[in-house]
Amino acid sequence: MRKLSHEELLTRQQTVREARKPLRFCAVLNNIRSLYNVGSVFRTADGAGLEKLWLCGVTGIPPDAKISKTALGAEKSVPWEYARSARACIENVKREGYEILFLEQTAASIPYEKYEPHGPVCLVLGNEIEGVSGELLELCDKALEIEMAGLKISLNVTVAFGIAAYHIRARMKSLWGAAPSGA
Amino acid sequence: MRKLSHEELLTRQQTVREARKPLRFCAVLNNIRSLYNVGSVFRTADGAGLEKLWLCGVTGIPPDAKISKTALGAEKSVPWEYARSARACIENVKREGYEILFLEQTAASIPYEKYEPHGPVCLVLGNEIEGVSGELLELCDKALEIEMAGLKISLNVTVAFGIAAYHIRARMKSLWGAAPSGA
Repeated sequence: MRKLSHEELLTRQQTVREARKPLRFCAVLNNIRSLYNVGSVFRTADGAGLEKLWLCGVTGIPPDAKISKTALGAEKSVPWEYARSARACIENVKREGYEILFLEQTAASIPYEKYEPHGPVCLVLGNEIEGVSGELLELCDKALEIEMAGLKISLNVTVAFGIAAYHIRARMKSLWGAAPSGA
Repeated sequence: MRKLSHEELLTRQQTVREARKPLRFCAVLNNIRSLYNVGSVFRTADGAGLEKLWLCGVTGIPPDAKISKTALGAEKSVPWEYARSARACIENVKREGYEILFLEQTAASIPYEKYEPHGPVCLVLGNEIEGVSGELLELCDKALEIEMAGLKISLNVTVAFGIAAYHIRARMKSLWGAAPSGA
């Protein structure tokens, strides 16, 4: 078995980039406290082919050295927009036909791996400690949760985002072949 | 929809903990440079129900304040052992019947989401920049890769670990019902 060289990976990625057709899949980051977490979500959103990130509330925005440190340039490749009010932002996105998914442990959450998209999807992430603000829950079409098998009751928000986002990507590809093949 | 309270989550987790039966699923961290990344892998390994982490080479070990900062206590709940030589460690684990999976972009890698476990699994992670050392590749039974749809050619190692580990967990549960239900 042979590892792909950095040059081979760059060449392959060039092809992906030229064929790139983002999924109908965006995310809302509401009140994310850590700029490193914001950057990490940018990097993962780039990998998973999201079309846009909405940065809301106290969530920091580019340009910022801490965001760049973990985004590694993805903050320049993934379209984003700041909206002070997450509520107004989610209401707009919902009106455009996106299914609103909260990544949150609620009484009605389903395991993320059982989720099947039926159209455009907006994934909402909340604060590292408090999660998604309770007052936004009425806007939620479906809540997804990630099983916690051990001692801790939650994952790091950027890891949780990666797990949910790549599941949604894989299902969208499988259902609609909507994404270019990059791997 | 109603969010679960911190108390409800703790009570639920108590039940999970009592029923806990770790998967036949371990991971090797070889030459992970960042102690924060080591801690984050501990936290995710706890959530995904891994039985053990092998920390190899220059990878830092608990107790360490930086590891604790991102592990949030999971470094005490997930069994771990230090092994200087990743090669010797992987050879031992392989001899015990584990399938050796590398999370790595190679000429023979398969998309992680197509991977199906057939027995005990050991997932090998390499250095943040260099990936898994090329000289270890001869020990690899299967290499998994995560599709990169955008500009960047790789994900943060802890995010990549979360995506692959939760996929393996979900498939093990689906095939063997091997894990307690925690969510």
